[in-house]
Amino acid sequence: MVLVAAIDVGGTKTRIEIFSEAREPLDAVVFDTPRSGDVTATLAQAVEKLAGEKKMDVAAVASPGPSDPVKGIILNPPNLSKEWWNLRITDRLGELLGCPVALENDANLGALGESEYGAGHEHSHVLYITVSTGIGTGLAVNGHIFGGSRGFAGELGHTTVTEKDRICGCGRRGCVEAVASGTAIAKQALNAGWSPPNGERPTARAVAEAAAAGDKAALEILTEAATYLGKAIVNFLYAYDPDVVLLGGGVAQSDLFLDLMRKAVDLEPMMPAFRGVPVLRAALGERSVIYGTRALAEKVAAESQGR
Amino acid sequence: MVLVAAIDVGGTKTRIEIFSEAREPLDAVVFDTPRSGDVTATLAQAVEKLAGEKKMDVAAVASPGPSDPVKGIILNPPNLSKEWWNLRITDRLGELLGCPVALENDANLGALGESEYGAGHEHSHVLYITVSTGIGTGLAVNGHIFGGSRGFAGELGHTTVTEKDRICGCGRRGCVEAVASGTAIAKQALNAGWSPPNGERPTARAVAEAAAAGDKAALEILTEAATYLGKAIVNFLYAYDPDVVLLGGGVAQSDLFLDLMRKAVDLEPMMPAFRGVPVLRAALGERSVIYGTRALAEKVAAESQGR
Repeated sequence: MVLVAAIDVGGTKTRIEIFSEAREPLDAVVFDTPRSGDVTATLAQAVEKLAGEKKMDVAAVASPGPSDPVKGIILNPPNLSKEWWNLRITDRLGELLGCPVALENDANLGALGESEYGAGHEHSHVLYITVSTGIGTGLAVNGHIFGGSRGFAGELGHTTVTEKDRICGCGRRGCVEAVASGTAIAKQALNAGWSPPNGERPTARAVAEAAAAGDKAALEILTEAATYLGKAIVNFLYAYDPDVVLLGGGVAQSDLFLDLMRKAVDLEPMMPAFRGVPVLRAALGERSVIYGTRALAEKVAAESQGR
Repeated sequence: MVLVAAIDVGGTKTRIEIFSEAREPLDAVVFDTPRSGDVTATLAQAVEKLAGEKKMDVAAVASPGPSDPVKGIILNPPNLSKEWWNLRITDRLGELLGCPVALENDANLGALGESEYGAGHEHSHVLYITVSTGIGTGLAVNGHIFGGSRGFAGELGHTTVTEKDRICGCGRRGCVEAVASGTAIAKQALNAGWSPPNGERPTARAVAEAAAAGDKAALEILTEAATYLGKAIVNFLYAYDPDVVLLGGGVAQSDLFLDLMRKAVDLEPMMPAFRGVPVLRAALGERSVIYGTRALAEKVAAESQGR
C-alpha cells in the first residue's frame, strides 16, 4: 500500500492528512502552525504520530507563497514566521520521513485540487482564487499547475488594480490583495471607524455579515473590495483565458461578496469573447489545497515508480 | 519542396513572405491592408502573384486581436475595417489557395517568432510585448503559444494599470494600451498642447525624439507612458513568470523609452524572486511576426504530413 502525507501549512493552522493508495483518508490532524523551534521536525513528528507503525511513501507540502517548488525551498512568506524562511523543506523533511517530498504554493495546489476533484473537474483551464487573509491565485491547465519558467507564476494577488495609496504587505501600492483581501476589508472598516455590533475589532466576516443585514457603511466597504476583485478578474481572464474561475477562502463564503463581485465583472466593458466565463465558488471548501497536495504527492509517487 | 506562405495582416500594412522548405525566403511583398471589397481574395491574389507557377503547401495568417485561432475566425479587431470582422479566413483562404491555412493573433506569433529565431531563443518562457498603435502581448512556452482554454489568452494590453479617466479603444478605463501605446503618447501630447518642432500633429515618435533632445514637456509625456508600462510589466512577471521579456513595435525602438521603462521596473517594490528577469528589445524587428507565422505554418504542415 502506498501511503501519502498531504501537509497544508497555512498562516494560522497546519492541516495534515494521510491517504492510502485507494485515496481513502486514513487520518488527519489540524494544529497551530509552529512559529518557533525546528518547524520541519514538528511537521515530521505530526506525520509520524498519525502514521503510527506505518512508513510514508511520499509527502507533499503546500506553503504560502512565495515558494520555490523546483528547488523545494519556502522563500519568505510574510504570513509565516522566520523559522520557515529560506527553508529547504523537501530535503529536510525528506530525510526525516525517509521518502520523497514535494513543495508547491498553496494557491497553485488549490487550483490543482479543484481541477482534479472539485468544481473545475469538467474544465481544462482552472483559475483558482483564494480570498482570505491574503489573495492567492493558481492556474491548473489540463491537470498540471501552470508554473512559468521557475514555478513562480500565478501571483495575481500582487498585480495592481489601483494607484490609490493602499500599500500591500509585499511593498507595492494598489495590489489586489491590498484592496480586496479579508485583511484589506478589515483595515478599511477600521479606517472608516466602523465597528461590528459586538463592539469588537472589525473583521472581514463581521463586515460581510453586517452588510448582508443592511448596514450601509459595511455594504460600502464590502462593495469596494468586491468591485476591485471583479475588475481584477477581468484582467486575469485576459491573461490566462481560463474556462472557469473558482473562488475559495473565508471571504468568498459570503454570498453577498460573490454577488457584488459578479456584478462588477458584468459591468466592466469586456471583449465579447471573454464574456460568460463562469465565476463560481470552489467546491472543496477548506480542503481544496489538501486535495491538490495529495494529487501532487501522487504525481511524485508515479514519477519515482516510473524510474 | 514544401512552399510556405506567411501573411502578416497589420492595421496599416500587410506583409506576405514565401519560404521554401529550407526556410529560404523566396519572395516578399508589402502593401496597404485592404479596407474594402473581398479582402480574402486580395490576399490570395497577392500570394499567387508571388508564387507564380508554384502552388502553396501551407499558409498561416497573423491578424490583430481579437481572433479565434481554434475556429479560424478574425473577430472584431478595432484596427481592421469591417470587411475583416467575423471572417472565417482559414476556410475561405484555404479554398482559394487549395492548402491548409492557420490563423493566430499577431502578438502571439511575435512571441513564437522571437522564441524560435530571435532574442528568446535561449529561453523557455518568452513574453513578447509590441508597443505601437496598440499594445499586443503573447507568451511562448517551450516553442508553443500559450493560448488558454480557447486561444484568447495573452491580451495583457487590455489589463488595467490606473483608474484615471483614460478610456481605451476596448471600452475599459486605464488599460495599459490606453496609457502606454503610441496612440496614448500622441494623445497625451495633443491634450498637453505639445507640438513637434515641425508644427505637425504630434506622434509618439516625435515625442520620443523631442524627449531625447531635451524637451521637458515631451520627456514628461514619454516618462508617464514608460512608467505605466514598467509597472504593468511587473504585473505580467507575476502572472506568467517568463524568463525573458522582449519588446517590439515602433515605440520600443526609442532607447530613452526603454531606459525609462526599465527604471520604472527597477523602482517598483517587487518580490526578490522576480528581480533580474531580462527586459530586452526583440531581435527580429519588423519581422518577429512573420518568423512566428512561418513557424506556425511549418507546425501545420508537419501535422498534416503526420496524418
